[in-house]
Amino acid sequence: MNIITKLFNIKYPIIQAGMVWCSGWKLASAVSNAGGLGLIGAGSMHPDTFLEHIRKCKKGTDNPFGVNVPLLYPEMDKIMDIIVDEGVKIVFTSAGSPSKYTGTLQSKGIKVVHVVASSKFALKCRDAGVDAIVAEGFEAGGHNGAEETTTMTLIPIVRKAVELPIIAAGGIATGGAMAAAFALGADGVQIGTRFAASLESSAHESFKRKIIDAKEGDTKLMMKKVVPVRLLKNKFFEDIEKAENSCATAEELRAILGKGRAKKGMFEGDLENGELEIGQISAYLDKIQTAKEIVDEIMKGYEEAKKKLAGLSF
Amino acid sequence: MNIITKLFNIKYPIIQAGMVWCSGWKLASAVSNAGGLGLIGAGSMHPDTFLEHIRKCKKGTDNPFGVNVPLLYPEMDKIMDIIVDEGVKIVFTSAGSPSKYTGTLQSKGIKVVHVVASSKFALKCRDAGVDAIVAEGFEAGGHNGAEETTTMTLIPIVRKAVELPIIAAGGIATGGAMAAAFALGADGVQIGTRFAASLESSAHESFKRKIIDAKEGDTKLMMKKVVPVRLLKNKFFEDIEKAENSCATAEELRAILGKGRAKKGMFEGDLENGELEIGQISAYLDKIQTAKEIVDEIMKGYEEAKKKLAGLSF
Repeated sequence: MNIITKLFNIKYPIIQAGMVWCSGWKLASAVSNAGGLGLIGAGSMHPDTFLEHIRKCKKGTDNPFGVNVPLLYPEMDKIMDIIVDEGVKIVFTSAGSPSKYTGTLQSKGIKVVHVVASSKFALKCRDAGVDAIVAEGFEAGGHNGAEETTTMTLIPIVRKAVELPIIAAGGIATGGAMAAAFALGADGVQIGTRFAASLESSAHESFKRKIIDAKEGDTKLMMKKVVPVRLLKNKFFEDIEKAENSCATAEELRAILGKGRAKKGMFEGDLENGELEIGQISAYLDKIQTAKEIVDEIMKGYEEAKKKLAGLSF
Repeated sequence: MNIITKLFNIKYPIIQAGMVWCSGWKLASAVSNAGGLGLIGAGSMHPDTFLEHIRKCKKGTDNPFGVNVPLLYPEMDKIMDIIVDEGVKIVFTSAGSPSKYTGTLQSKGIKVVHVVASSKFALKCRDAGVDAIVAEGFEAGGHNGAEETTTMTLIPIVRKAVELPIIAAGGIATGGAMAAAFALGADGVQIGTRFAASLESSAHESFKRKIIDAKEGDTKLMMKKVVPVRLLKNKFFEDIEKAENSCATAEELRAILGKGRAKKGMFEGDLENGELEIGQISAYLDKIQTAKEIVDEIMKGYEEAKKKLAGLSF
């Protein structure tokens, strides 16, 4: 038990990242049932879909679960109304200012966590009064910070800057990495990539297989002129890379991206023309497992890492 | 005691990275006297200077020390002759193939360690018969791998790929990070940035102060078309950045770099026009300390992290 398991009333300090096109109610409830905290990713859902997922998730688990809301979403007020009306108790926000919704949500008894990639934004979160932060490193999949600070570097820096509970994210897929995150100063871990490739993930089967087949160097942080995003290499990636190597403008990059690319890649399984967002640690993974197998393996690996360290004296 | 302390016959599994313009005999002997393994960085030394540093290091410490040799050095055979003639017992090689010198050096009773940034090169090291490897992540200072794999991601992947002893490098400056590296599967740590800013470092005083003043986002991996190198932002960095943003060729970048930039920046203290190589973790540091203070603090922090983990059960 620690500050994170107490905050969310969960068994293990393992948060499943709220991801576009991967984390619907099936994954979120499976992770919560396994003792972690499942998050429904609102980023790829219309309000009515979001509502449906929340209701199904409540039926799917009696354990706490939460939602992840990128604050740049166009129908934000509708989303927030649904969260409050449905009695969701945990909200992770990202990609926007933590000051706008934190107080309102907390006044309804909701715990609020905001995602940051630097100590500067961790301090803003503290000032906004959030309950915890996710500190996410350069190696994480999807949208990412501009400063490229890695998890190994970011966690001790953020730990020094704020006293808030810290959930480490980026590059974490094993119990050893969870122990590492704690040693660096974190109080919990958020895991995206490994759960994106889980059985209960709503990602397309072909995308899941591409995740577990990925090797080192198969992902790269791209689109830095628009918003940095870590992509798995494919035809679409090459188009972006070619444009960036020819000094394309942000506008030109946006034109190549177009609309619906992420859905096409991750949900519909178009591995060539779709946008495939995933973390570097995909190179470590080699099988599709259930959420419960993943949580159990992580906890086993965590105990082994603890034991290894306990036996190492100098 | 573990496989790394036994291999080098040292007290603590802390290796001071062999760095250009920072790690001469003063730093190497100070780290070795403090119980770690000091390395003389041959990369910025002519053979006669290198010889002088080895002889002074032998006088400066009775403990084991080593040398770091980038294998692209023009006078490599002279350097190797000096190593053998002077009875140096530990050689770290980098930036080249481990197959060329490993066997010859080992036949003289020398332990050989090679630096890699991927499991692919870790396997080459295994085939070359090295005694250990340094696995160095994206956040490390100076020259770096092209795949941008971070320490958090790289160590578990390399651990899965080879059974060799692994020394983790990149983003490590504290005892917590050392414990994290062990939890990820490493057997030792190599620390550059923090020792570059130590009292015994031969870096210019102004450069040391710039290191401890650095904030998140103040370093960036540049020159990817030539050879990736992590630089601290200054006037020279901006020149390179501007050229890269205008799609400069490798040849144009080399022309901007010119000759003697690293010496000018790191050794002579020209903070504007010099090349300043340093790791991301500089953003964590806030003081110049002796090598002994650094080693002692790391070991204290390591024990604290171990204790924290031992108390965390779920």
